[in-house]
Amino acid sequence: MSAPYDDHRRQLELILRAWGMPAINAAVTADIMAWADLHGIDSHGLSMIPGYDERRQTGKMVMSAQPKVVVDRAVAALIDGGGGLGHFSSYTAMNMAIAKARTMGVGIVGVRNSAHFGACGYYAKMAADAGFIGMVTTSASGIQVAPTFGAEAKYGTDPIAFAAPGRDGEPFLLDMATTTVAAGRIRNKANEGVPTPDGWVVDRDGNPSNDPLIASKGGFLTPLGGTAESSSYKGYGLAAMVNILSSALSGATMVTDPMHTRNPGTMGIGHFFLAIDTGLFRDPADFRRDVVDFTDSLRATRPADPARPVMVAGDPERRNAARRKQEGIPVGVNLLAKVKGIAEASGAEWVLG
Amino acid sequence: MSAPYDDHRRQLELILRAWGMPAINAAVTADIMAWADLHGIDSHGLSMIPGYDERRQTGKMVMSAQPKVVVDRAVAALIDGGGGLGHFSSYTAMNMAIAKARTMGVGIVGVRNSAHFGACGYYAKMAADAGFIGMVTTSASGIQVAPTFGAEAKYGTDPIAFAAPGRDGEPFLLDMATTTVAAGRIRNKANEGVPTPDGWVVDRDGNPSNDPLIASKGGFLTPLGGTAESSSYKGYGLAAMVNILSSALSGATMVTDPMHTRNPGTMGIGHFFLAIDTGLFRDPADFRRDVVDFTDSLRATRPADPARPVMVAGDPERRNAARRKQEGIPVGVNLLAKVKGIAEASGAEWVLG
Repeated sequence: MSAPYDDHRRQLELILRAWGMPAINAAVTADIMAWADLHGIDSHGLSMIPGYDERRQTGKMVMSAQPKVVVDRAVAALIDGGGGLGHFSSYTAMNMAIAKARTMGVGIVGVRNSAHFGACGYYAKMAADAGFIGMVTTSASGIQVAPTFGAEAKYGTDPIAFAAPGRDGEPFLLDMATTTVAAGRIRNKANEGVPTPDGWVVDRDGNPSNDPLIASKGGFLTPLGGTAESSSYKGYGLAAMVNILSSALSGATMVTDPMHTRNPGTMGIGHFFLAIDTGLFRDPADFRRDVVDFTDSLRATRPADPARPVMVAGDPERRNAARRKQEGIPVGVNLLAKVKGIAEASGAEWVLG
Repeated sequence: MSAPYDDHRRQLELILRAWGMPAINAAVTADIMAWADLHGIDSHGLSMIPGYDERRQTGKMVMSAQPKVVVDRAVAALIDGGGGLGHFSSYTAMNMAIAKARTMGVGIVGVRNSAHFGACGYYAKMAADAGFIGMVTTSASGIQVAPTFGAEAKYGTDPIAFAAPGRDGEPFLLDMATTTVAAGRIRNKANEGVPTPDGWVVDRDGNPSNDPLIASKGGFLTPLGGTAESSSYKGYGLAAMVNILSSALSGATMVTDPMHTRNPGTMGIGHFFLAIDTGLFRDPADFRRDVVDFTDSLRATRPADPARPVMVAGDPERRNAARRKQEGIPVGVNLLAKVKGIAEASGAEWVLG
């Protein structure tokens, strides 16, 4: 089933409203989730509804939560997410960071007492769309990555996103998990019945594995780099820094805290948002021209295979969005049925085919 | 040959002074270069002297340069490096960023018209030692990395460093090139006569290679991740962001500019320094306690091999420094002879064995 973007987005909003989320918060959250699906980031849109429903029902997320600004300084602010889903708090946070950067040149906003906030890149892109450099990190709830040399999972996929304005509508936009690959890509290999490439996973003893089902046998994801020899300490180090920025700075629960996500009532997730004025030191138009020339030059790199041109961060997602705007957003049969059941159970109108 | 740290540092200072570097600048630059050698980052200390000597003699670096503050705002400043070696400008820049963060909560200082600045991590560590979060990036002069899907080098090893204060004298300190490995590690494989692991290099057509001598045959380094399948777009994207922060923000020459490092007189390298107050939102002591607990928990991860414990970014370098403080800093015979010749030619006293 493929649905037009507007229906897809509307369905998300209807479910969030039925769950008791205030209207404005639900509209923004649906925007952000539908943006992810439109851009091919399927792991962070509609597919999250079953997980959100479970956390909502077990009291891990407060759907009526309103973000509250608890620290406000010239260049920085801290938001308490009230134990709610992270999207609206994060949207508010990046808007505040941009406003501060507009006045002061730089803005940093932290969020604590939050939950899953969807696609990291959305918030970095907000900064770029407003003409600013953006940087975003978040801590994670799932613990599934073994540090370099480790035989035990200690942290999550811990993403980091960067964005910068270039040509209108085509910002540089890097949104990356700090693991070699996300769990979804390993699941795809399992579905295809083929082994995972070297470096994607390790078994329960920390030894290299090519088994796409290794997670169900106690195995782990690897940090970006894959193996110690190919510098997985870099992905591991980036993940550690993501936790320091997202949680230690804001006062959210550290992922290694035994009570992480186990405190009653909230997930305790933390986020970090940074906006930098591109006109700090020079005419912002010169900054943009440099980014445009730079990224155009990268795209013009001689390709190893003419069928696979060199791209720049943000290009693949924009390509997906252009296609899905035409063809609609595809949703698998199983997921659709599951979400439909959740919508019905919560009394939300069903508009998705 | 191994020399005590003090002699090693002194020799560096003597050469820099003989090259016409002002006394304070030479003392700081020698500190930073000797720090790299002491910590096992051999690629960024004494081994740079021959390269610096060549650039100095061809007028690409002005040894008498003094950094000049050309923009100064509450939270940000821009330094013109005067075409000099980057260490002293960068030391000044991070000190300014820290001072601004102390007053305002955040500080950003850019440097343009600079050259090689040594080990990225030194400057990030300056922030952590002062109790701040540090982030540092620099553009590169050497163009040796092919973007994902590319068969042409478009940028350099483009490092990024992050640091955060934890236990006294043990900051979290990540200093990473955004390539899978540095050229030095490939050279080591060639010296041992063994192939490079999958993903380290590609040949001149962008195809996977295991030839440690591939660079001499037109091949390239790969972005962190190694292959498209194992997410090299992440290393490539980080490198692009490093260039945006280091060069587009400060107004240095972009690496893809045809005149990059070819403009008469200067290298045109740019750097980026960010300091963030750890007490932005909470008691800095609580931040530090969280970082200490977090990094201790990571170190306590069950190891795959008890002989190789899990470490945290900064640990391996501190281990090297502890050993080299005792045993001295080793310098290879060939490098020593080359540096001795350079010292003699420039009239510098020779104190290194």
